[in-house]
Amino acid sequence: MTIVEAVRWSADGSAVDIIDQRRLPGEMLRLELRTANEVCEAIATLAVRGAPAIGVAGALGLFASLASQTHDTHESFLDTLDILATRIAAVRPTAVNLPWAIGRMRAAATSAQGDVSDIMAALRAEATAILHEDRAMCRRVGEHGAALLFDGARVLTHCNGGALATSGMGSALAPIYVAHERGQKIHVYADETRPLLQGSRLTAWELMQAGVRVTLLADSMAASLMREGKVDLVMVGADRIAANGDVANKIGTYGVALAARHHGIPFYAVAPWSTVDLATATGKDIVIEHRSPDELRGPHAPANVDVYNPAFDVTPAELITGIVTDRGISSGVGLGSLHHYTTTPASE
Amino acid sequence: MTIVEAVRWSADGSAVDIIDQRRLPGEMLRLELRTANEVCEAIATLAVRGAPAIGVAGALGLFASLASQTHDTHESFLDTLDILATRIAAVRPTAVNLPWAIGRMRAAATSAQGDVSDIMAALRAEATAILHEDRAMCRRVGEHGAALLFDGARVLTHCNGGALATSGMGSALAPIYVAHERGQKIHVYADETRPLLQGSRLTAWELMQAGVRVTLLADSMAASLMREGKVDLVMVGADRIAANGDVANKIGTYGVALAARHHGIPFYAVAPWSTVDLATATGKDIVIEHRSPDELRGPHAPANVDVYNPAFDVTPAELITGIVTDRGISSGVGLGSLHHYTTTPASE
Repeated sequence: MTIVEAVRWSADGSAVDIIDQRRLPGEMLRLELRTANEVCEAIATLAVRGAPAIGVAGALGLFASLASQTHDTHESFLDTLDILATRIAAVRPTAVNLPWAIGRMRAAATSAQGDVSDIMAALRAEATAILHEDRAMCRRVGEHGAALLFDGARVLTHCNGGALATSGMGSALAPIYVAHERGQKIHVYADETRPLLQGSRLTAWELMQAGVRVTLLADSMAASLMREGKVDLVMVGADRIAANGDVANKIGTYGVALAARHHGIPFYAVAPWSTVDLATATGKDIVIEHRSPDELRGPHAPANVDVYNPAFDVTPAELITGIVTDRGISSGVGLGSLHHYTTTPASE
Repeated sequence: MTIVEAVRWSADGSAVDIIDQRRLPGEMLRLELRTANEVCEAIATLAVRGAPAIGVAGALGLFASLASQTHDTHESFLDTLDILATRIAAVRPTAVNLPWAIGRMRAAATSAQGDVSDIMAALRAEATAILHEDRAMCRRVGEHGAALLFDGARVLTHCNGGALATSGMGSALAPIYVAHERGQKIHVYADETRPLLQGSRLTAWELMQAGVRVTLLADSMAASLMREGKVDLVMVGADRIAANGDVANKIGTYGVALAARHHGIPFYAVAPWSTVDLATATGKDIVIEHRSPDELRGPHAPANVDVYNPAFDVTPAELITGIVTDRGISSGVGLGSLHHYTTTPASE
């Protein structure tokens, strides 16, 4: 099985090696990012996307962009580090992973003793740690979630909680990859996910690369598919999980959850623990971003038509069978079991 | 208010005048169809579409294409009539309205006494009757359905049950046009309707022509819109209504009905009585057409990805608040009230 690697070190360890997701699925092109310009451009234009992947790319990218500065004085090097770190962290300010990863890099530089080469060694080590932690997190999510799967399982997913959104095997798709590794035949139904078609462009493509059976459908077809008895369970990612277990995820997730409930089909949100935001009490406290009308107008609709285009929706905890994170699977709905995790994180 | 006229006689009454729906919404172009070739081409390529509109276009088109044959002998004229009628009726055999309308034209020719000019007069009269009956049917549907609306009503619709699908003011949109005529402000939310985007291309456009407020959304956004309390009722068309009140309509209708039920929002199917098929006991007896995978692959998905692409779904009667036809509104669900209609059609 080949799980695509969205973000990794280049072969010589001097650059960030990414899949250029702007060209998928038509062309599989890898890019090596060596300068802060290249790193920021790649993140800004969605060549690399998905909160975990962006965080990793930012950390590796900060190291790579400093490699040409190692002959500077200690003071000048630290000035450049500050400027580049600030710049990279700000490219997509709403994704929490990016400033978080850059913050870790800054702290590593501050803690490092010695000269510029010692700081560079500390930065490389910290970036590599962030990369490895993300990969390990994905695998733990996958191993916990795989307990819900079985040979022949038919899983509906929405958007791309895949390897392409992380540096590892993804979030929502990680259980599927683990089950596939174990020899189980899983059949994934991938919603195309309007308006940006992440299901068509990304999820279908990466599952095909790994040899996992995938069938593409329009978002509006999921309810019929369930009525035909062709879906055993739903696994979707999450952009933010509130303290009560409400889940914000790509627009359309809520409709899938309603249809799943009507047909008695289990519905799981699958995401890294870092997605749980205990400072957000319920889904009502999550502000939903509305995006450009042009995403829906495309070339098809009247040029000036009014548009409703929220990027996310909130699925209430009562429609969610369980939440799968790297710390385990919440039993029952939302809050109770999530709070349990916060006091006794799994040792794994 | 300008309700677009999808099909009508040309100014001199010698040709079928249609809106070329292949070019909408970018360009508003009317075509005059004068030959059987032109009529068949327009129907086959969806320049004119929607079962009622196709029936009317076929009837008017048969008359128009015979206009150049009036100097033939009586026998030769009837041979040509037979050939052209057979050809036009077969262009889209699954739409029942086309062979039905052509059948009426054949019967009118058979009944006509006298020479070729008498037959042509009978054919013109019958085509005009079919046109006027379709327009009157649309208006009756609209007047019955308008009783469900009120000033300020927010109506979600799916696909295009509009004026563009008929020769009159449409089916699902007819109540909205009638309410608008009466001075009520109606706000229509139009699902874009993947994969062929009839909502974006047609529904949004024709409502804007009429000055009705319309907001476009992706199909996957309807559930969120309902959760925000922005939908008062749903009105959709129907391709076939079974005897028990199950409704086959454009794929995605079923998911809308599930979301409406969850939020306590009334859900109406709005269609001409001719859509009711009492020979079909339940929705399970309706065969669902699956269309080309390429409609979903587009330029975005992997070229060879497996696809699930049903053209229609079935919404069970228990999810339907009422069925609006030119004979009135069914009270309660499906079968009982529909059977009532068949024995006591409204006198209107």
